[in-house]
Amino acid sequence: MPSIRVVLVEPKSEGNVGAVARAMKNFGILDLALVRPCAIGIEARQRAMHGADVLARARTFASLHAAMEGADLTVGTSGVDTESEKRFARIAMTPREMSTKIGKMQGRVALLFGREDFGLLDEELRECDVLVTIPASDDYPILNVSHAATILLYEIFAANAGKKGQRPASGLEKEKLHEAFGDLLTATDYPNHLRGRTRIMFRRLLGRAVPSKWEFHALMGVFQRATKRIKRLEGKR
Amino acid sequence: MPSIRVVLVEPKSEGNVGAVARAMKNFGILDLALVRPCAIGIEARQRAMHGADVLARARTFASLHAAMEGADLTVGTSGVDTESEKRFARIAMTPREMSTKIGKMQGRVALLFGREDFGLLDEELRECDVLVTIPASDDYPILNVSHAATILLYEIFAANAGKKGQRPASGLEKEKLHEAFGDLLTATDYPNHLRGRTRIMFRRLLGRAVPSKWEFHALMGVFQRATKRIKRLEGKR
Repeated sequence: MPSIRVVLVEPKSEGNVGAVARAMKNFGILDLALVRPCAIGIEARQRAMHGADVLARARTFASLHAAMEGADLTVGTSGVDTESEKRFARIAMTPREMSTKIGKMQGRVALLFGREDFGLLDEELRECDVLVTIPASDDYPILNVSHAATILLYEIFAANAGKKGQRPASGLEKEKLHEAFGDLLTATDYPNHLRGRTRIMFRRLLGRAVPSKWEFHALMGVFQRATKRIKRLEGKR
Repeated sequence: MPSIRVVLVEPKSEGNVGAVARAMKNFGILDLALVRPCAIGIEARQRAMHGADVLARARTFASLHAAMEGADLTVGTSGVDTESEKRFARIAMTPREMSTKIGKMQGRVALLFGREDFGLLDEELRECDVLVTIPASDDYPILNVSHAATILLYEIFAANAGKKGQRPASGLEKEKLHEAFGDLLTATDYPNHLRGRTRIMFRRLLGRAVPSKWEFHALMGVFQRATKRIKRLEGKR
């Protein structure tokens, strides 16, 4: 995974800057650069919450060029996508495509977010190696800047998070559960001609749920208990 | 794609409510329900931007139950994930797994977001069919509520680029199945202190599997049959 710098270009709302700092902290990205920002005060710190350290360490730059220095790849965000290859400067990838791409690389990546009202200017977008547009409703595709940052940082984090393990039940355990389900059908005199498809229904259902070991054991307990009780009661007749 | 309702439970900051309304508008989701919210005023409308119509049409409810009425699937969000299978009530899926699942269904889905400080209470999470936790940094995994909503709505929007529907069971049918499962536990003298968590285990399992109407009916048939048989045999003793 590369090291990521978030660059906010001329943010006008300190609340947004604070909210971006919080989102960065949430996704473990700590390098914030501000290009000609508004004054950063109490509201920014309040919105940053536990991301206040990210905000405190943010560096301010007089130009976008200075803020991008040392970046191996520059990613610009734009709310305006286009189908037209003529306006090539604005042809964009999705956040997911972007995160898949940069997840594999080493080096430094700068993520640029533009002004609340005008976004990034054409000349700024032309400096970017990669353009990203967040898929959104045609009615109102312009996201708040901290929401846009949250989605990109989330995608980068998700692409890099080693899928963390639950403990799914083993094939053997599952077969035992299916056996227990079949035993229950038998114990209840379930109609013979329906047993096959009911068992398959149950197999498909569990296949989709991907139950944990614990869930398998709990469910098996319920089925075996019911079967035993029926058999015991029948024995007493 | 199902119809989606966003439910904010006891939001304390009107700014957050406005920001959620904006994110909803960005992703074409317009049904907002507020449970015992703070006062909604100018700040909320400012933050909502072009989502002000979503905010204006938001309905206020005195209880979570009232806000959830008619939902076929309830999704709760929780910042606290757990490795422990014992704390099964908090075992969660990722936003992407959730959106893949609900993208295929018809019906109504309620997305629940909790208080800024305490999130959703355990008793509220227990009512949910599906739990979602957003993967984030261990150092600070608690996202701003509008950021959390943005990620879920974004994932749902992204997943629905061209998917078509199945017929999942309705909320009412599911409650009947859960009742039938509870009846079976009772009929088998399932240990009292384990019933609660076994029922929740079953609810989560079905929440993940998103069963069809036919599957629900088949499973209900098996449970009711077993319960009836036990009762009838006991009557004959």
